[in-house]
Amino acid sequence: MDIHGYMAQLKEEIDQQLIAVIACPTETPLLVEAMCYSVENGGKRLRPILLLMMLEAFGYHCQKGMHAAVALEMIHTYSLIHDDLPAMDDDDLRRGQPTNHKVYGEAVAILAGDGLLTEAFHVLAKDKGLPVETRLELIQLLSATAGAQKGMITGQALDIQAEGKKVNLMALKHIHELKTGRLIEFACLAAGMIAKQPPEIMSKLSQFAKRLGLAFQIQDDILDVEGDAEKMGKPVGSDASKRKSTYVSLLGLAAAKQMLADEIEAALSLLDDLPIKSDRLKALTHYVAKRAH
Amino acid sequence: MDIHGYMAQLKEEIDQQLIAVIACPTETPLLVEAMCYSVENGGKRLRPILLLMMLEAFGYHCQKGMHAAVALEMIHTYSLIHDDLPAMDDDDLRRGQPTNHKVYGEAVAILAGDGLLTEAFHVLAKDKGLPVETRLELIQLLSATAGAQKGMITGQALDIQAEGKKVNLMALKHIHELKTGRLIEFACLAAGMIAKQPPEIMSKLSQFAKRLGLAFQIQDDILDVEGDAEKMGKPVGSDASKRKSTYVSLLGLAAAKQMLADEIEAALSLLDDLPIKSDRLKALTHYVAKRAH
Repeated sequence: MDIHGYMAQLKEEIDQQLIAVIACPTETPLLVEAMCYSVENGGKRLRPILLLMMLEAFGYHCQKGMHAAVALEMIHTYSLIHDDLPAMDDDDLRRGQPTNHKVYGEAVAILAGDGLLTEAFHVLAKDKGLPVETRLELIQLLSATAGAQKGMITGQALDIQAEGKKVNLMALKHIHELKTGRLIEFACLAAGMIAKQPPEIMSKLSQFAKRLGLAFQIQDDILDVEGDAEKMGKPVGSDASKRKSTYVSLLGLAAAKQMLADEIEAALSLLDDLPIKSDRLKALTHYVAKRAH
Repeated sequence: MDIHGYMAQLKEEIDQQLIAVIACPTETPLLVEAMCYSVENGGKRLRPILLLMMLEAFGYHCQKGMHAAVALEMIHTYSLIHDDLPAMDDDDLRRGQPTNHKVYGEAVAILAGDGLLTEAFHVLAKDKGLPVETRLELIQLLSATAGAQKGMITGQALDIQAEGKKVNLMALKHIHELKTGRLIEFACLAAGMIAKQPPEIMSKLSQFAKRLGLAFQIQDDILDVEGDAEKMGKPVGSDASKRKSTYVSLLGLAAAKQMLADEIEAALSLLDDLPIKSDRLKALTHYVAKRAH
């Protein structure tokens, strides 16, 4: 099976589990509908797929990581809902659909985000397929990588601090390492934890995640300049119109593409250095650099 | 020592621990300041104090419950920050001080809430004073009581659904049981979990928490009618001006006071039924009914 077919298969399993966790019988149907709406809104599921593929590369069945993958996607989704709010990025569209607060109103959108964030930890805590020690390690890792002390929230706060200011390349990389990189790091490290890997392997997993996360972000910026608006579900050129610093705006398109190629090469070489079956992960890494949305 | 002196002593220890957890070295000083601002903003610490006193009543040292108490107060504080936002209750003042978004802006207030919520689970997960099984049970309990499936967030969503509608007594009680009662239940059940109590005791702890939580809410409504604005740090009569259904608006002041007395009596009798040293908890229960803010 090619990488696209396999990604589609994993995505289907993740989607089923996500909805099973969130769409429970409820006396607050609007809240649950709002949570489902953003979760179902056509994400690529790159983070949970990475977690499951990494776990398989260590020789484990991907079901062992399904709860962690679902929790990760719930955290990613909550961050998008809150990020789109008028007080934050004030976005009306996400993946071609109206953003959560545009459909359900701001109050429900805030609560839907809070709900996904809270329930993500419930999913990890009650994952009966893993030993209690591993569950606890995963909860520590998720709260650290998503948190406000060198975590995703720190990255979002840095992003807000940088608004309207000129940001240099180092500062831009640092914001992205936190804002998007930390959850990608969770995907890789969670797989390593479940597969009980020693510290030196965990450190290599971190390095791989950083390279891959950076490549992901550079491709995001390139797509914003030369992507296909229809495939992306958002207009091209939105970064420039918001005067956001990007790899393209700081380096130019040619140098940004070179930087992307360098990061992908470094990521691939780190994969070669890990004691894993890396074919699918290599294909996934190439996909990140070549994706059209 | 009288109950006020003892509450003040516990509050001081809780406050110290809270600040130690939140005020870490950071590259996002505004975010951390915003988190500290709401945590330091003069709360009574009723929920964490209840947890620690309950644990002592079972014969345990209160330090065993300190991390759980801190996590609980962090969740309570995040819910207040998000609740005060313009899209939610749109409150400018909380305990006589400007609300978080009034001082730091909405974007930082949203992130400060997200940060406190996420870090609360980190505090529980890394509580080295408790066995891993207990930590995991506490995380399950906190994510359930604070969550979007019959948890605090469900109560907030019900509250939003009820806006502008006439609510009857049963519906009002139900909203409060979730919105404020569930975290009070966490306080009691967390103490029971740490003290390894059997199911029949846990069930009595739940019943006590429900009575106490209801009493707390009725007294809140009574204070909004006949309290001292200066002591409360907010104007009297704000419920009526917002046309909110309260125990006083539904029952009248005299019947609301009778209901409060009944709930307190039921709570005290449940304490008598528990295998604990209950003197301080009884004094705390009386305090809830008589507090002036």
